Amino acid sequence: MANAEKTSIRIGLLGCGNVGAALASLLVDPSAHETLVRRAGVELELVAIGVNDPNKVRSQESWFPIHLLTDNVDAIVDRDDIDLVVELMGGLEPAGTLIAKALASGKAVVSANKALLAQRGKDLEELAQAQRRDLAYEAAVAGAIPVIRTLRESLAGEAIYRVMGIVNGTTNFILSKMTAEGLAYDEVIAEAQRLGYAERDPSADVEGYDAAAKAAILAGLAFDTSIDLEAVHCEGITKLRSVDLAYAAKMGYCVKLLAIAERIGDGISVRVHPAMVPLHHPLASVDGAMNAVFIEGAASGPIMLYGQGAGGLPTASAVLGDVIDVARNLVASTYQQPPRRHASLAMKATTDLVSEFYLSIEVLDEPGVLAKVADVFGTHGVSIRSMEQTGLGDEARLVFVTHLALEHAVAATIADLKNLREVEAVGGIIRVVGNDQEAQ
Amino acid sequence: MANAEKTSIRIGLLGCGNVGAALASLLVDPSAHETLVRRAGVELELVAIGVNDPNKVRSQESWFPIHLLTDNVDAIVDRDDIDLVVELMGGLEPAGTLIAKALASGKAVVSANKALLAQRGKDLEELAQAQRRDLAYEAAVAGAIPVIRTLRESLAGEAIYRVMGIVNGTTNFILSKMTAEGLAYDEVIAEAQRLGYAERDPSADVEGYDAAAKAAILAGLAFDTSIDLEAVHCEGITKLRSVDLAYAAKMGYCVKLLAIAERIGDGISVRVHPAMVPLHHPLASVDGAMNAVFIEGAASGPIMLYGQGAGGLPTASAVLGDVIDVARNLVASTYQQPPRRHASLAMKATTDLVSEFYLSIEVLDEPGVLAKVADVFGTHGVSIRSMEQTGLGDEARLVFVTHLALEHAVAATIADLKNLREVEAVGGIIRVVGNDQEAQ
Repeated sequence: MANAEKTSIRIGLLGCGNVGAALASLLVDPSAHETLVRRAGVELELVAIGVNDPNKVRSQESWFPIHLLTDNVDAIVDRDDIDLVVELMGGLEPAGTLIAKALASGKAVVSANKALLAQRGKDLEELAQAQRRDLAYEAAVAGAIPVIRTLRESLAGEAIYRVMGIVNGTTNFILSKMTAEGLAYDEVIAEAQRLGYAERDPSADVEGYDAAAKAAILAGLAFDTSIDLEAVHCEGITKLRSVDLAYAAKMGYCVKLLAIAERIGDGISVRVHPAMVPLHHPLASVDGAMNAVFIEGAASGPIMLYGQGAGGLPTASAVLGDVIDVARNLVASTYQQPPRRHASLAMKATTDLVSEFYLSIEVLDEPGVLAKVADVFGTHGVSIRSMEQTGLGDEARLVFVTHLALEHAVAATIADLKNLREVEAVGGIIRVVGNDQEAQ
Repeated sequence: MANAEKTSIRIGLLGCGNVGAALASLLVDPSAHETLVRRAGVELELVAIGVNDPNKVRSQESWFPIHLLTDNVDAIVDRDDIDLVVELMGGLEPAGTLIAKALASGKAVVSANKALLAQRGKDLEELAQAQRRDLAYEAAVAGAIPVIRTLRESLAGEAIYRVMGIVNGTTNFILSKMTAEGLAYDEVIAEAQRLGYAERDPSADVEGYDAAAKAAILAGLAFDTSIDLEAVHCEGITKLRSVDLAYAAKMGYCVKLLAIAERIGDGISVRVHPAMVPLHHPLASVDGAMNAVFIEGAASGPIMLYGQGAGGLPTASAVLGDVIDVARNLVASTYQQPPRRHASLAMKATTDLVSEFYLSIEVLDEPGVLAKVADVFGTHGVSIRSMEQTGLGDEARLVFVTHLALEHAVAATIADLKNLREVEAVGGIIRVVGNDQEAQ
C-alpha cells in the first residue's frame, strides 16, 4: 500500500470563481491549518489552481496563493504529484474530460458540478470505481446542506419514498418576495437581477433547469438508479401570478418551486414545478435564498435538511468536507464505493400522476355559471374540495382546490373549461403537495 | 487482507426493546433484503440477539427471528464468527463492558447509547482506534436526524461556533402543548404520561439530563474535544409557567428546551436550559415530539437538521445506516478513524456568559415602583430593552426583556429585586437566544 506513509495530500484545483477562491482561502488560511491537519489526519497541500486568466484578482486576502494560478489546466490533471483534483469550473466541458482524465490517472476527484453529474454521473462513477478512487460531490446539490452524504450513508438502510427540495435560491427569493410584497414576477425578477440574486439571463433558474439537474442527482441516490435528465418534467415560475400567491396565502399555503423525486409503485416520478405547500409544513418556512430538502422514508419518517444552497463560502465548506473525507480515504488506501445503481426505474409520465390542484378561473358574472363549471369538473371525475368566488365587476373569479385527481383529467377539465362561453380565462394552475405527508 | 473475500457480515445484537426489535425486523425483512445487500455490498446476517428474557414477545411480524433470542449476552461478544456488535441495551453497564470486550476482540461496534458515549465515549474511541475498528453512534443523538455524520464528515472543514438543538421530544411535546393550550406544566406532564410520551419518572427528560448527555456528545464533535458531563450546566422545564409562555408568544417568541454548545473565545460553553426563540428562527417551528439541530459555522452559515428524534423505527433507521457503513468498511478492511480530540477546552462558567433575559416580576401596584425596580437593573449594569406592565388587582406584573447582560449581573439584580418591599415575586426567568444569529 504505497499510500500508507503519506504525510501530505497534494491538491490541484480547477476553476477559481466564487467557490474556488473561497476554497483556496480556506485551504491555505494559516489560522485554520492546525484544525484541518488534525481533522484530515494528514497535511492538505494546495499545489496548483487552473484558471482561464491567471492575472485576474480572485481574493482580497493577503494569504491567497496567487503564485499557484496557472492557465495550463491540462497539466494539473496530468501531474503525477497530485493526489486529488477539485473541479469547480462548472459546465459539461472541459470539466467532464478533465475529471475523466484525473480519475484515469489514479487521482481522486471532488466536484460541485451539478450539470455534469446529472448528465454523466453514472459514467464517471463507473470510472472512479474501476480506478478504486473517490468521486465525491456533496456540494453539487444545495451548497452547504449535507444532503448527498445523508442519502448515501445515513439513509443507506432506508426505503425512501419521496424527496422534495427547495434547491434553487434565486426562485425561492423571487417567490418569497412576490408573496410578502404582492409584487408581480416581472417586477421582482428585475430587482433580483439588480441585487445580483438573479443572472442577466435567468432562464436556468426561473425555468427550473437548475433544479431539474439537482432533482436528477437526488432521485438517482434516493432510488439507486440513473436518471435521464431529459425525462425530468420541468416547469418554472415565470407564469405564476401574484394574485394566485395571495389566494394561496389566504387558504393557508405558500408557493414554492419544488424538485420532487417520488417512488410510485414500481416506477418513479422526477419533476420540477411550483407547488402550494401548507404553511404548517416544514418546507413552508424556508424563505428568501435559503434551500431545504425534505426526505420521507418508511422507517425514518420525515427528515428536513436546511441551509444555504449557494454562495462561495457555504459551497466551499461542503467541498472542503469532501476534500477531508477523500484525504482520509487516500491515507487509508481506500475509497467510498459509488452507489450500486440498478437498471433505470420506469419514469412515470406526469400526466399519469395524482395531485390536488389549485385552479383560478375568470368567468362572466351570470347566474348558472358555477353549475356549468362544476359540471365540467364532474364530467372528468375531478372532485372539488373547496371553491371561493370573488366579484370583479362584470366578471367573477372562481378559485378551486380539487381533491386528489389525475393530471390528465385535470388537463381535460381545463381544456373543456376554456371552451365554455362563460369562461374568460383559466389563470393559475398550481399543484398542491404536502397535505398527504403521512400517506403512501 | 483477510476480510477481502468476505461475502457476509455477521451481526450480533445486544438489547431488543423498541429500537432493537425494529432493527431486527429491518435486517431480516425479506422484501428489503435485495436493497440492503446492494447498498452494503455484502450480505448482512443477524446471528444472535442478546436479551434478559428470550420468551418475551418482541414483534408481531411473522418474519421476526425469535430463534435468535438468547439470554447469554456475554457469549455474543465472545463469539469469533461475529463481525459487528450492535449495542441497543442502553445504560452504562453492562453495555460499556460488553462494547469494550467486543472492540477488544476485533469486532466493530454500532451503538445508540447516549449516556455511555457521553461519559465514556473518548475511552471507547481510543480502544476502537487501537483495534482499527469502527465505533459508530449516529443514533445516539436525535434518532433519525443525521447530525453525528454531519458534524464528523460534512462539516469536517468548518469552524463551527455554535450548535443549538431541540434534542428531547418529551419536553418539546410538553412545551408545545403548554403553549398551544395555555396549560400548566403539571397538567401536561400528566397527559404526556397517559399518552406514553413521558416516563412514569420523567426526570431524565424534564430536568434536562437526557439533553445534557446529547449536548456533551455534540459539543465534543463540534469542537474536537472531550466534555466532562458533570460540567454541563443543566436546567429543565419544570419551573416554566404557562403565563410566561403566553407573554413570550405575545412578544414573538416561543420557549424551547435547548442543548447548546458554543465556542466562546478560547473556551466553550455547553449547557441545557429553556430559551425564548424568535418565531422567525428555524428552531421555532419544530413542534410536538420532533427534534432539530441548528449548527452555525463560519463558512457554512446556518444549517438545520430536522426529524424524528426518538421512536423505534426512526432510531433503527439511523442504526441501520451505521451498520451498512461499518459493513462497507469491514469489506474494504478499513475503518473510520475517531475524531482526534485535543485537550479539553476550558468550560466557561454559565455565570460568565452573556445573554438577553426575559424576567417576569410581580409587584405592588403603587406609584414609583417601576422607578425602584428599574434602578436595581441600572445598579447592576443590566440594560432594559423592553418592559410591559399588566394590572393584577392590587398588584401588577412587570415583564422585562433585557439587552445582552452578564448572567451574574442578572442574578445579582434578581437577588436585590427580591429584597425590595414592593416586589412580591420574581417569577419566570428565561434566556433569549437567536436574536444574534449572525453575531460572534
